[in-house]
Amino acid sequence: MSLVLYTYWRSSAAYRVRIALNLKGLPYEARPVHLLNEGGEHLKAAYRAVSPQAQLPTLLDGDHTIRQSMAILEYLDETRPAVPLMPGDALGRARVRELMQAVGTDIHPLGNLRVLRAIEAEFGADQSVKEAWSRRWIKQGFDGLEAVLAQGPAGRFSYGDTPTLADCCLVPQFYNAVRWGVDLTPHPTIRRVVEACQALEAFQKAAPEAQPDAG
Amino acid sequence: MSLVLYTYWRSSAAYRVRIALNLKGLPYEARPVHLLNEGGEHLKAAYRAVSPQAQLPTLLDGDHTIRQSMAILEYLDETRPAVPLMPGDALGRARVRELMQAVGTDIHPLGNLRVLRAIEAEFGADQSVKEAWSRRWIKQGFDGLEAVLAQGPAGRFSYGDTPTLADCCLVPQFYNAVRWGVDLTPHPTIRRVVEACQALEAFQKAAPEAQPDAG
Repeated sequence: MSLVLYTYWRSSAAYRVRIALNLKGLPYEARPVHLLNEGGEHLKAAYRAVSPQAQLPTLLDGDHTIRQSMAILEYLDETRPAVPLMPGDALGRARVRELMQAVGTDIHPLGNLRVLRAIEAEFGADQSVKEAWSRRWIKQGFDGLEAVLAQGPAGRFSYGDTPTLADCCLVPQFYNAVRWGVDLTPHPTIRRVVEACQALEAFQKAAPEAQPDAG
Repeated sequence: MSLVLYTYWRSSAAYRVRIALNLKGLPYEARPVHLLNEGGEHLKAAYRAVSPQAQLPTLLDGDHTIRQSMAILEYLDETRPAVPLMPGDALGRARVRELMQAVGTDIHPLGNLRVLRAIEAEFGADQSVKEAWSRRWIKQGFDGLEAVLAQGPAGRFSYGDTPTLADCCLVPQFYNAVRWGVDLTPHPTIRRVVEACQALEAFQKAAPEAQPDAG
């Protein structure tokens, strides 16, 4: 069945899914939804019919609509298992999911566009305050994640020697960390893993700047 | 193997896992970690040795340490499948995970204690502002979730006629919605599902007020 991804070049959550699609070698049609144009295309009725929560990404798999990036990642791994991105054992999967959530629930939601807009509207936060807010949660999250990753198991990637869904989540968050100027000196394990990921074409092709809608 | 849960009565994430343990009929030892006493027991070295990210809950399964509530939920369902809390098909699981994430990533992280403390410290938010902040994200999240749930599939619970991990996440968020005074009039499907859940002993026994460390 044909795959369609509603995406935006700088959406960290869409970036996760682009990586997984590339790692699995799955072709897909990208449908850009611009988060900033005209007050946000994602907030308009056309996209809300696809995603009532007005969020990116959404995956169409033939007639099926799959939403929420981490649910999409698991779905792709279950339905396209030829290149597995999850360990074969329950304990390994729990570990990878822990690493996914450490980014997906503990860091990313707090630096989302809607939250930055809210602290501007409610508390008058200007650009520099918003950037400091983003850095705060990335730093705090990465401090914990660094400790967890350093506990092992040893390997080139977040979990072992092949990429997993944990790497699909880590790399986009790292991209944001660099974008907002987070000091990554205390995070050598994270840096090493991201470097291993970035050497792979699947990650390079998924990068924001490599997207047709980048601008 | 014996199960140990690091928990706090009002931790919404721990509440999720308590529900799942009860639905599956799994006995466990509860180890309370008080989030408020002495500046927060979760921030002290003893608990950081268990959870480098200083977060609740953590599950010990014999020698194994499982962290992040949604990873714990999936782990319990994979390793104790006698009472399944996930659908048997990939599309159904994707849907349940979508519903889990709609709470676990879109709502809950924004009303967390550390975020409320941050808007107090950074922006001088007082108690009423912090409560309005919490309500804002619950309302926005529930508006989207209501639309998603109303799309079906029809059933007594979030997905079908038996409880799933989606219900384990929804009920604790609903508890917080009531606590902060969110107007739930626009969310009849959510209210109906939560009512069905609350009729079950597994949910009742997991409630904050039913915990030994409630106070």
